[in-house]
Amino acid sequence: MAESSFSAVDIIARKQSGAALTPEEIAWWVKGATRGEIPDYQTSAFLMAVFFRGMNVKETRYLTSAMIDSGRRLRLGTINGIKVDKHSTGGVGDKISLILGPLVASVGAHIPMISGRGLGHTGGTLDKLESIPGFRTGLKVRAFEGVVRKVGIAIIGQTDEIAPADRKFYAIRDVTSTVRCPPLMVGSILSKKIASGADAVVFDIKCGEGAFMRNAREGKNLAGLLIKVASTLALKVSAVLTRMEEPLGTCVGNALEVRESIEVLKGRFVEDLVDLSLTLGAEMLLLSGRARKRDEALRLLRTALLGGKALQKFREMVEAQGGDPRVVDDPGRLRVAGHTRTVKASKAGFVADIDALEVGKIAVALGAGRTRAEEDIDHSVGIEFLKKKGHRVAEGEPIAVVYAASAARGRRCAALLADAIRIAVRKPEPKRVIIGRVSSGRIEELPPV
Amino acid sequence: MAESSFSAVDIIARKQSGAALTPEEIAWWVKGATRGEIPDYQTSAFLMAVFFRGMNVKETRYLTSAMIDSGRRLRLGTINGIKVDKHSTGGVGDKISLILGPLVASVGAHIPMISGRGLGHTGGTLDKLESIPGFRTGLKVRAFEGVVRKVGIAIIGQTDEIAPADRKFYAIRDVTSTVRCPPLMVGSILSKKIASGADAVVFDIKCGEGAFMRNAREGKNLAGLLIKVASTLALKVSAVLTRMEEPLGTCVGNALEVRESIEVLKGRFVEDLVDLSLTLGAEMLLLSGRARKRDEALRLLRTALLGGKALQKFREMVEAQGGDPRVVDDPGRLRVAGHTRTVKASKAGFVADIDALEVGKIAVALGAGRTRAEEDIDHSVGIEFLKKKGHRVAEGEPIAVVYAASAARGRRCAALLADAIRIAVRKPEPKRVIIGRVSSGRIEELPPV
Repeated sequence: MAESSFSAVDIIARKQSGAALTPEEIAWWVKGATRGEIPDYQTSAFLMAVFFRGMNVKETRYLTSAMIDSGRRLRLGTINGIKVDKHSTGGVGDKISLILGPLVASVGAHIPMISGRGLGHTGGTLDKLESIPGFRTGLKVRAFEGVVRKVGIAIIGQTDEIAPADRKFYAIRDVTSTVRCPPLMVGSILSKKIASGADAVVFDIKCGEGAFMRNAREGKNLAGLLIKVASTLALKVSAVLTRMEEPLGTCVGNALEVRESIEVLKGRFVEDLVDLSLTLGAEMLLLSGRARKRDEALRLLRTALLGGKALQKFREMVEAQGGDPRVVDDPGRLRVAGHTRTVKASKAGFVADIDALEVGKIAVALGAGRTRAEEDIDHSVGIEFLKKKGHRVAEGEPIAVVYAASAARGRRCAALLADAIRIAVRKPEPKRVIIGRVSSGRIEELPPV
Repeated sequence: MAESSFSAVDIIARKQSGAALTPEEIAWWVKGATRGEIPDYQTSAFLMAVFFRGMNVKETRYLTSAMIDSGRRLRLGTINGIKVDKHSTGGVGDKISLILGPLVASVGAHIPMISGRGLGHTGGTLDKLESIPGFRTGLKVRAFEGVVRKVGIAIIGQTDEIAPADRKFYAIRDVTSTVRCPPLMVGSILSKKIASGADAVVFDIKCGEGAFMRNAREGKNLAGLLIKVASTLALKVSAVLTRMEEPLGTCVGNALEVRESIEVLKGRFVEDLVDLSLTLGAEMLLLSGRARKRDEALRLLRTALLGGKALQKFREMVEAQGGDPRVVDDPGRLRVAGHTRTVKASKAGFVADIDALEVGKIAVALGAGRTRAEEDIDHSVGIEFLKKKGHRVAEGEPIAVVYAASAARGRRCAALLADAIRIAVRKPEPKRVIIGRVSSGRIEELPPV
């Protein structure tokens, strides 16, 4: 075969020198790495060369296609209409899928959502859902398709058959500091979404110190590449840049975040969560053709949220996936750790900063997340913020509560959390969680929801 | 231990961002990789990050020290005076050690030479010596020291105990395109030389299409780093830049190169070989204190070469290392492959170019070299040039002879060789093999020998 004529070291050298790789070279690498024919030490060197030299739109498209072809491609043919999903690049306290998914499904969209687990300082939707007693995230494809058809939404984990190349690459990238690399991120994200059967995807690209993209410029570049590559692969997309400096919402930790999501679905107004859910939801309705204008989409969503339709959809989803629907009416059924510790304001002033990256690390230290993929997590631990950025505090006033599995760990993590919160005399300028939507290489402001 | 507090992925990330690593981080990596505690896929990513971001003089010094400390350090305490060695960055037809070593030893210097094997398109001194029946390149340290003390020179291979970190790194660099990286080259070269007990080393830094350093600028940069790092480690060095565009001398291939070396030691004038041997030899005598001025050094060397002392020293070395000394008087005892094929000039003119890189690859195709470290080689095959760059040729005049193990391979390689030789109407400008000596960051011309 012509394929065997490639040399791994020559391909590395070509990328090192800044050359654009051919579709054949990229396909050869993806296949060889997935099958274990190219050793990991060559793949890690290759990925690092890509980190430094980048990939152009065509190369990234070839990479994405090869990663899709590394496994099975779901068609979900029994679901009518456009299947729309959402992907977030990962943040702290990001329980948006739990609110957004049922909300958008409640106005008629079909959402076959494939989610991930927490890794590093970012949490994962699957871990959050699994704090609901009985909830199963490992449905088979046929059952998954059935729930989406009947309920409108199901949320499961990636199966082994979907883009196995991504699992191989991600395992290496995670331990070699090549996660934060736009073409590799785009290949990873798009291959999974396309292979999972999505026709349209809304991207929530987190920007800030708590995210992989450190600022809006980096986020815009990633969004631009995502949009360009997706268009060559007939995937409809919309990319929204959002701020990730303080944690999203008021809770971090699995059961705590489910509880908070249910509260929002019941009408509690947590500003950033509501803004983000309605903004991303409107994009999903526009992509799926359920609404023709943003105003119309927002109206539909507000009605569904305030009228209880979204909460009802959440209940249906929990039940269809084997979870105990009674948690909706009685969130006390979600187990929360018993050792609590309050962090208080060291002085009077305004909360000027809550470092999302640090909070994410503290959540991991509490046991809510993992530093290695094989670790177990504790769904019951986490942090609840009583104050957010911009809130006024008196000296000694409680700002946050740590829920820990032991008093010692609670004490230690509360001390760390105190260091991650900055109080200032001046009120910080309020910043909306939504930065804007990327369109034609520019960041376009989105009017308030 | 404090050591265990380092994280491989954090160190990679720091180097990726361009930070200078600490001595502790570098020592931790070298030790961990050598012991197999850091997996190869992280080491390859680390080395690629170093490839792109470089290392400053201090970091390179820490790297070198850590690599020395990864194994045993020979002291060779029974040898009086300064022990001087030579290191070449690798070329095609480079049999200089075979001439230079005995030549310099014959005027009283002590040369404990640690050499390598051929890999890729470059040949290795050990392979060449092993074409002498009985010659042993695997002497134990005590025997090695004894031969150097008695004869003045011995040439052996690196033992497993010397800088094992280099073997680990090199095996990875070779297959991940990170060989051509100055700090990694400097760490590799200096750690082996210092651990082998050398007090002074002359570097022959090959520059050109047939070498790792593609031009004099790259060579000068490597030399500058070598000199700076060596000085922090109390190693006396001199760095000479030399041209590697056409093969050195007239022969490429193991037995053929030994035969040519003996001819030069007997007084045959092969311009580039003699110029290079005398130039590097003079540097070795200056470093070892056997001569105070270059003119004096050159006079001693010319006398030794023309008076037969160098040839006699070669004979003593061969005998002391178990080889058959009769090859000196009767080079017919060196087995040369029987299938010969002549490459003729396609037109009249001048030999304008002989592509060393291509010639090296053809030698490998003939079986004279290896593409993987574990391959066997055929000492009897190779190429003999009857004409070199600048020589006038008539149409159909023989330019080179291929010595092959089979008629078919001879035919195929002769055709490849014809393509590697360019004939032009104009005589090319003659260029001396010596470019100059690097001193205080400048290339200093060296007067003719």
